Amino acid sequence: MSNSIGKLFTLTTFGESHGIAIGGIIDGCPAGLKLDMNAIQAELDRRKPGQSKIVTQRKEPDQVEFLSGIFEGQTTGTSIGFVIKNTNQKSKDYSDIKKTFRPSHADYTYTKKYGIRDYRGGGRSSARETANWIVAGAIAKQLLKNIKINAFTSTVGSITLDKNYQELDFSKTESNMVRCPDTASAEVMIKHIEEIKKQGDTIGGTITCVAQNVPLGFGEPIFDKLHARLGQAMLTLNAVKGFEYGSGFEGTKLKGSEHNDAFNTDGSTKTNLSGGIQGGISNGMDIYFKVAFKPVATLLQKYDTIDTEGNSLEVQGKGRHDPCVVPRAVPIVEALTAMVLADFYLLNHITKL
Amino acid sequence: MSNSIGKLFTLTTFGESHGIAIGGIIDGCPAGLKLDMNAIQAELDRRKPGQSKIVTQRKEPDQVEFLSGIFEGQTTGTSIGFVIKNTNQKSKDYSDIKKTFRPSHADYTYTKKYGIRDYRGGGRSSARETANWIVAGAIAKQLLKNIKINAFTSTVGSITLDKNYQELDFSKTESNMVRCPDTASAEVMIKHIEEIKKQGDTIGGTITCVAQNVPLGFGEPIFDKLHARLGQAMLTLNAVKGFEYGSGFEGTKLKGSEHNDAFNTDGSTKTNLSGGIQGGISNGMDIYFKVAFKPVATLLQKYDTIDTEGNSLEVQGKGRHDPCVVPRAVPIVEALTAMVLADFYLLNHITKL
Amino acid sequence: MSNSIGKLFTLTTFGESHGIAIGGIIDGCPAGLKLDMNAIQAELDRRKPGQSKIVTQRKEPDQVEFLSGIFEGQTTGTSIGFVIKNTNQKSKDYSDIKKTFRPSHADYTYTKKYGIRDYRGGGRSSARETANWIVAGAIAKQLLKNIKINAFTSTVGSITLDKNYQELDFSKTESNMVRCPDTASAEVMIKHIEEIKKQGDTIGGTITCVAQNVPLGFGEPIFDKLHARLGQAMLTLNAVKGFEYGSGFEGTKLKGSEHNDAFNTDGSTKTNLSGGIQGGISNGMDIYFKVAFKPVATLLQKYDTIDTEGNSLEVQGKGRHDPCVVPRAVPIVEALTAMVLADFYLLNHITKL
Amino acid sequence: MSNSIGKLFTLTTFGESHGIAIGGIIDGCPAGLKLDMNAIQAELDRRKPGQSKIVTQRKEPDQVEFLSGIFEGQTTGTSIGFVIKNTNQKSKDYSDIKKTFRPSHADYTYTKKYGIRDYRGGGRSSARETANWIVAGAIAKQLLKNIKINAFTSTVGSITLDKNYQELDFSKTESNMVRCPDTASAEVMIKHIEEIKKQGDTIGGTITCVAQNVPLGFGEPIFDKLHARLGQAMLTLNAVKGFEYGSGFEGTKLKGSEHNDAFNTDGSTKTNLSGGIQGGISNGMDIYFKVAFKPVATLLQKYDTIDTEGNSLEVQGKGRHDPCVVPRAVPIVEALTAMVLADFYLLNHITKL
Repeated sequence: MSNSIGKLFTLTTFGESHGIAIGGIIDGCPAGLKLDMNAIQAELDRRKPGQSKIVTQRKEPDQVEFLSGIFEGQTTGTSIGFVIKNTNQKSKDYSDIKKTFRPSHADYTYTKKYGIRDYRGGGRSSARETANWIVAGAIAKQLLKNIKINAFTSTVGSITLDKNYQELDFSKTESNMVRCPDTASAEVMIKHIEEIKKQGDTIGGTITCVAQNVPLGFGEPIFDKLHARLGQAMLTLNAVKGFEYGSGFEGTKLKGSEHNDAFNTDGSTKTNLSGGIQGGISNGMDIYFKVAFKPVATLLQKYDTIDTEGNSLEVQGKGRHDPCVVPRAVPIVEALTAMVLADFYLLNHITKL
Repeated sequence: MSNSIGKLFTLTTFGESHGIAIGGIIDGCPAGLKLDMNAIQAELDRRKPGQSKIVTQRKEPDQVEFLSGIFEGQTTGTSIGFVIKNTNQKSKDYSDIKKTFRPSHADYTYTKKYGIRDYRGGGRSSARETANWIVAGAIAKQLLKNIKINAFTSTVGSITLDKNYQELDFSKTESNMVRCPDTASAEVMIKHIEEIKKQGDTIGGTITCVAQNVPLGFGEPIFDKLHARLGQAMLTLNAVKGFEYGSGFEGTKLKGSEHNDAFNTDGSTKTNLSGGIQGGISNGMDIYFKVAFKPVATLLQKYDTIDTEGNSLEVQGKGRHDPCVVPRAVPIVEALTAMVLADFYLLNHITKL
Repeated sequence: MSNSIGKLFTLTTFGESHGIAIGGIIDGCPAGLKLDMNAIQAELDRRKPGQSKIVTQRKEPDQVEFLSGIFEGQTTGTSIGFVIKNTNQKSKDYSDIKKTFRPSHADYTYTKKYGIRDYRGGGRSSARETANWIVAGAIAKQLLKNIKINAFTSTVGSITLDKNYQELDFSKTESNMVRCPDTASAEVMIKHIEEIKKQGDTIGGTITCVAQNVPLGFGEPIFDKLHARLGQAMLTLNAVKGFEYGSGFEGTKLKGSEHNDAFNTDGSTKTNLSGGIQGGISNGMDIYFKVAFKPVATLLQKYDTIDTEGNSLEVQGKGRHDPCVVPRAVPIVEALTAMVLADFYLLNHITKL
Repeated sequence: MSNSIGKLFTLTTFGESHGIAIGGIIDGCPAGLKLDMNAIQAELDRRKPGQSKIVTQRKEPDQVEFLSGIFEGQTTGTSIGFVIKNTNQKSKDYSDIKKTFRPSHADYTYTKKYGIRDYRGGGRSSARETANWIVAGAIAKQLLKNIKINAFTSTVGSITLDKNYQELDFSKTESNMVRCPDTASAEVMIKHIEEIKKQGDTIGGTITCVAQNVPLGFGEPIFDKLHARLGQAMLTLNAVKGFEYGSGFEGTKLKGSEHNDAFNTDGSTKTNLSGGIQGGISNGMDIYFKVAFKPVATLLQKYDTIDTEGNSLEVQGKGRHDPCVVPRAVPIVEALTAMVLADFYLLNHITKL
């Protein structure tokens, strides 16, 4: 069941970019959760394309329709089915990729693995799938009500937000197109993306995510360590190439005497290089991690590639695409985080008598 | 079932550092695999402590005993049970940690989550568990016979092996204590670890792993993308703080026109920033990734901490520990890689008619 | 994930009787299966209400709409999402059960377990859910193309079809309302159901199912024995109270010397009291089993019950219900059988090298 | 993972009849459960062979050895590994079956499915495996402390204990060899088994199991209905051919007006044809079900069969076997029941807010 994520709070999804609809089933959400439907739609609106000039200009309303599992505004404990219709299926835009493998896309591997692919708009490999995750993540957020999850753009290409997350005002993340809570950095990032866009090119970047007020005890060793499940979730996100938490790759350069987080007498720690997770279990401190996104593969330039017969050809990229996916991925990172935390929230109810 | 990994080729494990034994059950290994028992034991020997002066001087024979699932030298298709006895249980060495929480260990989180912990030698959170993974990984390697998996130490602290993996001779990895295939770099790394050890301190580092001859088609989108499952596996390894594959975090700085891997007419690619995985599915190119290890938390120095009652105290670290876990983690990274690939090898048999 | 069935060929479902739609996601169907859409709809038509005078007179078109996973008539290996709209939602028919617990229904247990229930038409506990199973089963049948699955009504109340299945012509099953391939027995059964219906009462019965041409090797001991998974599947069907295969309960009265199936030299057996399964694995002989259905709980009579406050009251049952569910359950038994066999068909690809 | 059972309280097992040991891993038992080790061993003693003249005269001490997950008498929340050594491996007794397929055993299907079988004593298909279940079941019983689970022999061949379970004194079940709580019936059953034994033959029978004090709410529709999971568990038990709960197969002959369980004002029911389960969820009434066992296939008579080359031959059965497995299966039925209930006990913690 490779289209499912989670053990207790689970999401199973379906849908191709240019099919009739995408959607999913949330199984395991406890009964009795009063849902704020506007909050769910608001998260979808954060993700949807066409919001600003630095993202793709496709317009999709991305209206979620719940089909089951909710009655009189509350979850009933039964599975929650939902669909999001694909209203903007410009199939002709993609007819040129029917017989072409785009470099660094999933076209080639899907075709060779399955012997067939729905080539329209990337089909199942399209990031359109992530709208499904937003729905489940928005419900997970409501289940986790006291936990605060804030993701933001921390780098675009080589432009880096050079502040600790503690210095940031997360309420400003949504105030700019690039979703960087530091206004000065945001401006530089936006300008950079605009330049890249003019070239018909794309650029990578990173997202940092901070989860606060996570109770001690989330995470189930050995193989369901909290950071391992967060990492897996993030690595399923299109274009992600890396994940690190706490001190991450930089921490490898430190000595143990520099890296250990000394305790306060209440069990909290004076530093938090651990990133809020020790032995795979949340320790009550802030959880933070960083996710690396490659530059998206779709260019609006000429490039060389091959067709499905193995012939070389030159292609002129066209259409409506994101010069940098990082801003739009911010709510998706939050949604995945919420789903993983919701799962461990439930699991943690039954780990001791 | 948080002590299980894999969907078809699965491992479920048990065992505390200072209990009677550790062990596991491999479920899903196909029948008819002729096992080279010496090769399995050889992998365990690579992991075991006491092999050189830069690793812990504990001596454990780590002899695996298979209890089922193998008959007349072949797997029978039934579950393979095995145990590795804990012969070197110096429980008294650990009596001092009974009432103390060591900083940046799992002591505190296990105690608070479960209300009880086997404090002897780290109990379930000890890296002794990884000997179980070696067993399953060694069998997975035999199942995958044409696939070559080579991990090696790529950095120790700030000392970096500054070569592409293509320039390396993997047959030299085992020729030195630090498991770096570049002899010159290895010497610098070893010297650095020896200095760190003298200080009673520890140091982090990274391991790079390369899997070659992986057929196209491994990986099952959406949530079982090959790199997501590799990432999850690596992040379960003790002390790991990060994972990246292909171009990784550095790749975020590139433009799409620099990052895309152009095709050759046979479907191979001219460059391989994708790291052998596109859309979550192996494309037949080399798979490579990097894993970040923090400096281990156990110091042979004085440090401040708290006891289980919340009182501050000063502790003098003692015993036999690894100044740098990276060299001993090299075969573990390979074992986890082999397990993940074996799982997808089986899954890939049934994804098309 | 209690709304999922199967390990490789899996179905996850959602939907309440009187919500907007029911539906599901089939995950694990191999790519490259050419689907006969008419055959799928024909199975749905076999199940739908209103087909004859001995079943409920509700009219539902039960039109399945596939949303993903099928491209140009073939499965693509991605998850197959589908919905079946609820077009005949007479919610007012059920307003009387809002505050009443019907005896031997799921009203009471759902309300007490979840604290909330969608009372309209039974909500999630309605047999309407089985339409989802028909869809997945119809696809499974196409995947298993050479395997023949035939279920039929074998008893209604005390009226028994007193022939071995080998004497029956399965092509006649659909020729009568009660789905009994023996015309003479069918007539008696139908007459009995009509009498029961006049009384506003209901009656139980049994279905026998025969799966032929199942290859040797389906079933995965220990816990996924073929008959254990068939039994679990049948026991999820509404109103089912028992399952037996091969010699079943009657076989308990025999001696081993009477019960053992002697071999022919080709490995087939002279008798088949084993029911085609030995040690949990199909042996190539016909698989047959019997499923017991209680009389449905919904009566069109007066009866005593309690309301949600615990007050006694008398209720006059009304509406449109099945006097005997057995005839309509015949295609559902087949669908569940097909799903279970499809799962083991896939699993059996990877159990030996 | 076909050697695993359960979703939260899980058991994964290994072991062949004549290998070094059998054993398992219990994953998901909450931390803080104080274990009565004698009670666990006592359950194993109930199952072990050689207890009376009507069961096999093999002697196996069946001593369980726990290897992990228990510390200072309490579960720690980590996985519980255990082994039971095979001390009575008379491999030569079984050398005659190396090249022979015994009728109605698993010899033929295992060999053909896997291409190899451990023929010694039935290998993995031996009922020796059930000792593992006893261990997990005994722990589950302690977790469920207020729930009473009582199984007993209800028929042997055609000899039937003709009383409702309410009339029985379960404390007498262990007072006789056949485990029938009605002394008069027990004597007839024992005499019958002794006659069958003299003939070198075997006989089937049934076990009834009653679970009392099960709280309302156990069971997770749709596919994890309580009775479906009980049925699956029972059908994994060697020699089981059928399962029914509540009114079972007899209930199919009733009318709805006879079968419905009218409510008392406290929600309990006046009758209990539902068998304590409605809509797949326990309703607080007694749960009861019946399990059908075929006569075991191993005869101490001459019989015809084939060898692995397909040649006919006559074989003289010999050795030490059970003329009727039903008495020894009584504690196994209880153990499986306990495991299933423990799983739902945990799941039921998280189904509503």
